[in-house]
Amino acid sequence: MIKIAVDAMGGDYAPKEQIEGAMLAIRKIPDIEITLFGDEPTVKSLLTNDERITVVHTEGVIAMGEKDPISAIRSNRKSSMAMALTVVRKGDCDAVVSSGATQALIAGAHILVGRLKAMKRTAIAPLIPTVRGTNTILLDAGGNIEIKPEYMLHQAYFAHIYAHEVMGIAEPKIGLVNIGTEAGKGRDLDQEVYKMFEQDKILNFVGNVEPKDVLDPPCDILISDGFTANIVMKTVEGTAKGIGKMLKQELSRGILGKLGLVLSLGNLKRFKSRLSAEEIGGAMIYGLRGVVVKAQGASKAVGFYNGIRQAAVICRNDVLAKVTAVIEKEFE
Amino acid sequence: MIKIAVDAMGGDYAPKEQIEGAMLAIRKIPDIEITLFGDEPTVKSLLTNDERITVVHTEGVIAMGEKDPISAIRSNRKSSMAMALTVVRKGDCDAVVSSGATQALIAGAHILVGRLKAMKRTAIAPLIPTVRGTNTILLDAGGNIEIKPEYMLHQAYFAHIYAHEVMGIAEPKIGLVNIGTEAGKGRDLDQEVYKMFEQDKILNFVGNVEPKDVLDPPCDILISDGFTANIVMKTVEGTAKGIGKMLKQELSRGILGKLGLVLSLGNLKRFKSRLSAEEIGGAMIYGLRGVVVKAQGASKAVGFYNGIRQAAVICRNDVLAKVTAVIEKEFE
Repeated sequence: MIKIAVDAMGGDYAPKEQIEGAMLAIRKIPDIEITLFGDEPTVKSLLTNDERITVVHTEGVIAMGEKDPISAIRSNRKSSMAMALTVVRKGDCDAVVSSGATQALIAGAHILVGRLKAMKRTAIAPLIPTVRGTNTILLDAGGNIEIKPEYMLHQAYFAHIYAHEVMGIAEPKIGLVNIGTEAGKGRDLDQEVYKMFEQDKILNFVGNVEPKDVLDPPCDILISDGFTANIVMKTVEGTAKGIGKMLKQELSRGILGKLGLVLSLGNLKRFKSRLSAEEIGGAMIYGLRGVVVKAQGASKAVGFYNGIRQAAVICRNDVLAKVTAVIEKEFE
Repeated sequence: MIKIAVDAMGGDYAPKEQIEGAMLAIRKIPDIEITLFGDEPTVKSLLTNDERITVVHTEGVIAMGEKDPISAIRSNRKSSMAMALTVVRKGDCDAVVSSGATQALIAGAHILVGRLKAMKRTAIAPLIPTVRGTNTILLDAGGNIEIKPEYMLHQAYFAHIYAHEVMGIAEPKIGLVNIGTEAGKGRDLDQEVYKMFEQDKILNFVGNVEPKDVLDPPCDILISDGFTANIVMKTVEGTAKGIGKMLKQELSRGILGKLGLVLSLGNLKRFKSRLSAEEIGGAMIYGLRGVVVKAQGASKAVGFYNGIRQAAVICRNDVLAKVTAVIEKEFE
């Protein structure tokens, strides 16, 4: 049995959607057990089926817009997020899934779960959709602003193994986010990483990738430092949000346009869901001594279920042990 | 009369669309004269009205995908781009408009037009659309990878004056592209620039802006270094392109969907044009001793005309002299 700790209280629609997502996961995935961390009376009132689900009472919630995540975690050790992270550290659970505040989860994971010895820096790696119907791993979407090329290599190995083991890609390709495709483009960091990746024997490096191909990249993994990849992720989000608004404004013009819009509503909804991180699952935090999956803050039941499913696959395929073995071998 | 030099040979659809754009500009803007630089027989065969238009024969074209722009400009002094830039340096023309290779135009402008004494670094500043129907200046979209905070301040002044004089915004607001809105977010560069902008008396600084608001920002100008702003610009482009493809895939599903799509075609076309840099005009290169406007490589006649119109407004409102006066006063 894979044991998954669920932070029931974190997220825009918590705890209702998190609890429904957990019950859905139990129905769909036979080899998991779930521990729900949250306010016991509230959780129990929403839990209509407690098969393979245990509830642990917690006190307090880390706020979604938390500005000082480290203090928040340190001073709220009984919060749902902190307690869910702690059981992973202790080995009582194999993975934690939370849709709580991202920065608090990263800070909490560092403090309460701890870093993998082999990896010097953690990274957060969301999945973004492609026009081909597949997903691309984007990293580091918000961890480390200043980073050494060597640490980016560790992260690249992690993504490589993740793409292979969890996404089922036989030979994952990796590209470096850059302002031009030629070798030698970008900052000193980019140029050094380029050389390192080019010489590497594990990675299938396709070279520099410009973000004008961000939704149709020639690779499965897009990597950059924590500042740049975060900018890319937020620009994709902002552009998608803006285009959605513009589309609505334009499509509802005129009588024929309005009729067209009505007939297109089902398809537009499907279109929207393709762009929604919700449907894709969560972002994994790489480099920890446990599996930590960050589901979207705005997760509803299906999105949260997808995060749990993802965590289960990561555990089932023993991703952490495989990553550690590769990095230790390469750097011994 | 404002004298505008037009590189007739640069661009994906050159010289046809450039020449048509020039004739359109002459019809619409009474106070301009145009000199077309290009292969004389070809240009003359396409020029159906030479009112206020002079043709200067040139030899050779800088290729759109030019990988070594500096050598290309140095070894093609008789090319349409190089000759158009040269007349601006000499003062024979007030501005140059080109839809040729961006990097070659930037390099050529440095070599052949020269830098404004007051500004230590040039910047390229395209306009991106907002959901409100306005445009945002984004800079530096591709000039300087490593930059000092002080040079970013010069560029910010330029954008401020441009927004006021050319876009008619009474009190332009400026935001720093960053990974979080709080002060203290981002790299050392961002933190230093934040402090400098906050204390500045000319700029209306709104603080950090996350690119998840890139199409609906709380400001008229978005600024970052040449690496980051280029990444933002290309991510907007890539996301728009990808979403366009996904939308087409989704909207054409099912019989009702197809009917809806047919009824929506006119509106979708209008939607597409709102996102097209084409409709907005060109990117100005800030910091040169002449007005250099880069129209989109894929410009058709209307897009190119918009670039010429923009160049005319910049000259008419004496933007370069105003920028120089402000920078010299602040740093004397």
